[in-house]
Amino acid sequence: MADTGHVAKPIGIFDSGLGGLTVARAIRAALPAEDLVYLGDTARVPYGTRSAETVIKYAIGCAERLLSYDIKLLVVACNTASGVALGELEARLSIPVLGVIQPGAKAGVQATRSGRIGVLATSGTVASGAYERAIHSENSAMRVFAQAAPLFVPLAEEGWVTGAVPRLAAERYLQPLVEVDVDTIVLGCTHYPLLNETIHDVAAELLGHDVVVVDSAEATASALRETVDTGVAESGTAGELRILVTDLPGQFASSASRFLGKPVQGLDIQAIDL
Amino acid sequence: MADTGHVAKPIGIFDSGLGGLTVARAIRAALPAEDLVYLGDTARVPYGTRSAETVIKYAIGCAERLLSYDIKLLVVACNTASGVALGELEARLSIPVLGVIQPGAKAGVQATRSGRIGVLATSGTVASGAYERAIHSENSAMRVFAQAAPLFVPLAEEGWVTGAVPRLAAERYLQPLVEVDVDTIVLGCTHYPLLNETIHDVAAELLGHDVVVVDSAEATASALRETVDTGVAESGTAGELRILVTDLPGQFASSASRFLGKPVQGLDIQAIDL
Repeated sequence: MADTGHVAKPIGIFDSGLGGLTVARAIRAALPAEDLVYLGDTARVPYGTRSAETVIKYAIGCAERLLSYDIKLLVVACNTASGVALGELEARLSIPVLGVIQPGAKAGVQATRSGRIGVLATSGTVASGAYERAIHSENSAMRVFAQAAPLFVPLAEEGWVTGAVPRLAAERYLQPLVEVDVDTIVLGCTHYPLLNETIHDVAAELLGHDVVVVDSAEATASALRETVDTGVAESGTAGELRILVTDLPGQFASSASRFLGKPVQGLDIQAIDL
Repeated sequence: MADTGHVAKPIGIFDSGLGGLTVARAIRAALPAEDLVYLGDTARVPYGTRSAETVIKYAIGCAERLLSYDIKLLVVACNTASGVALGELEARLSIPVLGVIQPGAKAGVQATRSGRIGVLATSGTVASGAYERAIHSENSAMRVFAQAAPLFVPLAEEGWVTGAVPRLAAERYLQPLVEVDVDTIVLGCTHYPLLNETIHDVAAELLGHDVVVVDSAEATASALRETVDTGVAESGTAGELRILVTDLPGQFASSASRFLGKPVQGLDIQAIDL
């Protein structure tokens, strides 16, 4: 390392748990050469039910730990943390910080024809109003309808992503969005892309017309590609994915591979203390 | 206080979150004169998905905080913590420590006629084998069938306790217990009593005969009444309930009153740091 003029710095990603691996997966697909360090705060998941003060405290702790890996850019893969802690992180850090909300909001605005955008998220994200603000900062004429869908998280973790239970849950959560006739639905939680198909099909059935379902993970990866291309140096070789977790739950491997979309065998996974 | 010969000490109760309020509620009904201090570790809920080491660390932190209230007895209302941390707590504390697993196991053994007992619990509690051990310590001839039912926790928190979604989830989780024809089902998670009716009705329908559903909270309160009657002094006046939480989530009041079975207005609720 000492003699190379160029040291490739990794991109840091953190989430409250493993859900953010959907973001890591999308980033790997978009930027395969980049080294990634992913920190999942599995000891303190979920953030969505916690107060803003607590989430900010946790987010700073995660960011500080990732800084010790000399990251060149921080992706906040957690919607809750993106909603309440991004300003604080930007103020404290000298590297670029990218959340998942603004990219998802932008993709929603680009997709809609009717200007009526639904957002599905955790109770905490809905209560924060973060998606309304982000969408209105892109286009103030948009109508935004945010709906909490907390049961989608355990359904994704259980792997119950198709069939009667997720369909019934989706019907219940989508009903208010159907009543206001949205044509675009932004998935405002890292877990929800696993239920993408069910959400899309139930929404289209109930609405009686097609609907665009925006995956924030994909949108964030696209935004990141623009950032890395235009400003931050890209590493030359095939990228590595290092995973740090603050707790190693019993079903770690099956959950992680569900979110990552492939087996976790052979991955560099390390338990850390925060 | 200084001149009274007798100072009534409170009973300490802790849980990973608010679910243990079902235990506090049962204890108040069984021992109305006792002062209770309840600590809900809402900043770190849930414990059920965490490693044993982490749960033990958290449990010791909760117990130490409650000791500062000069409690005479500690109730571990969290099944996960009861399963992995009870021995460690008993070794460290000089006051009696009561978990929720042994009382639930005992009530299950007393209720069964066929000797075939089902247990519904979180993945962590099922993996720990704690209920099998507890039931076999009561009667080694019992057959125990433990089934993880993780979706019941968010269903209880959402208030979706009757209707199609909880019924479908119950059908799915109960199927393995139906196949082995249990006649008794122990609810091994503090959240599950809210779904008691649905669990009972679905189980009885699928089994084709009645089934006893054992509520661990009730069983623990009964066990505590025996302990307090026989060993530990009871306070003379009407008891107070003090609630400590490590985080004050947005929907605290509605969740807490759901578990406590009454509005939380007028209760002494305090946010603490652990």
